[in-house]
Amino acid sequence: MHKLVLIRHGESTWNLENRFTGWTDVDLTPLGLEQAVQSGRLLKAEGWDFDLCYTSVLKRATRTLWHVLDEMDRTWLPVVHSWRLNERHYGALQGLNKAETARKFGDEQVLVWRRSYDVPPPALDEGDPRWERGDRRYEQVRPEDFPRTECLKDTVARVLPFWNEAMAPAIRSGQRVLVAAHGNSMRALVKYLDGISDQEIVGLNIPNGIPLVYELDEQLRPLRHYYLGDPEAAAKAAAAVAAQGKA
Amino acid sequence: MHKLVLIRHGESTWNLENRFTGWTDVDLTPLGLEQAVQSGRLLKAEGWDFDLCYTSVLKRATRTLWHVLDEMDRTWLPVVHSWRLNERHYGALQGLNKAETARKFGDEQVLVWRRSYDVPPPALDEGDPRWERGDRRYEQVRPEDFPRTECLKDTVARVLPFWNEAMAPAIRSGQRVLVAAHGNSMRALVKYLDGISDQEIVGLNIPNGIPLVYELDEQLRPLRHYYLGDPEAAAKAAAAVAAQGKA
Repeated sequence: MHKLVLIRHGESTWNLENRFTGWTDVDLTPLGLEQAVQSGRLLKAEGWDFDLCYTSVLKRATRTLWHVLDEMDRTWLPVVHSWRLNERHYGALQGLNKAETARKFGDEQVLVWRRSYDVPPPALDEGDPRWERGDRRYEQVRPEDFPRTECLKDTVARVLPFWNEAMAPAIRSGQRVLVAAHGNSMRALVKYLDGISDQEIVGLNIPNGIPLVYELDEQLRPLRHYYLGDPEAAAKAAAAVAAQGKA
Repeated sequence: MHKLVLIRHGESTWNLENRFTGWTDVDLTPLGLEQAVQSGRLLKAEGWDFDLCYTSVLKRATRTLWHVLDEMDRTWLPVVHSWRLNERHYGALQGLNKAETARKFGDEQVLVWRRSYDVPPPALDEGDPRWERGDRRYEQVRPEDFPRTECLKDTVARVLPFWNEAMAPAIRSGQRVLVAAHGNSMRALVKYLDGISDQEIVGLNIPNGIPLVYELDEQLRPLRHYYLGDPEAAAKAAAAVAAQGKA
């Protein structure tokens, strides 16, 4: 049996400001940092250990991982960054306040953008200063792969090649893998692993900064999954995520 | 022409306590952390950028690198850890105070252990709790490569394979490389690059937390090297390193 541990980054400054973040590279808040530290302590206290770590190219996930590794005394572990683990690209909504956007477009429209499986938010114009195409970290991304907006279906489509080509072979070879990623790159992965339908995934929320364990069989089929630590705290944190898009 | 940037980690707790550190995994002091931050700011202000980073498996070097990358907004850069970039193994002197050791054995003996090219300090017993063989980060190190003590010659011998097999090919392929390492793994590299004699290397001291730039030709022969920032500060810091072993 294999165990895979996923952590959504701790609270970010734009989680706190209730703004759509997407690929915008905002940092953790002091609470987000503390969530990362607590995750690391919890993993260490429960005797978890890892051989290989994956994260996105966004600093809120990287910093979460660094704090986790620091607490586990594992700062020397190999870390692989991939843009394919980035948060869902939020298109022209990036930077906008979620509640204001809900007041402007209605709760329903925002819920569609936030949670529908295949309706992307409005795309960023290529001339928009928020478009990240020129950023060095994306130099290797092929033009046809580079998003201007994404629905969750798009996120699944770009996360899965990384799962298939990098993560799954590493796990199969016996490496104990830790992933620090984002709400929607984790939902994409979880949808695939658990075979969740396009309809059901809408209701699935992943809390910040709580390690989520997947136990997988030899074919990497999930046997069970659970959050570490206090289950009530995890449920409350997930409910808070679900409520973010309301006016 | 290629440019290679080397940084010795910032001041560590045992630099401050004037103790022989070697492979003991001590952390940075607040000053050491600040030196790392300043190095990052300096590199950013001068327009430096990198494609690939190397560091040891010791946290004082990793944390120095993390702070540098953070200041440069390059937390997403790939980082390769290798035990071959570790500090020189200090054998049975690890943990001892340098001045006390000098009082006990004499300045001259300590200078021989610290600076002679081919006289290693007394070896650690295999049963010594300071022996790191059981540490997970060294699992992949072959028994015959695992030191119980090292002279600088030994350090050169284990750094060079990593230079030849990993770093040099990366630099030759055009990647801009940043290395965060240790006083003696850097001396080993510098000795090799500049063809410094076994006698001359004894007098070479590398200050903590100041970026050292090597400009290399196509065959990776050094054209020149220099410290970034205030040259007087670099010279003073190097002199302080040289004075550490005195009673």
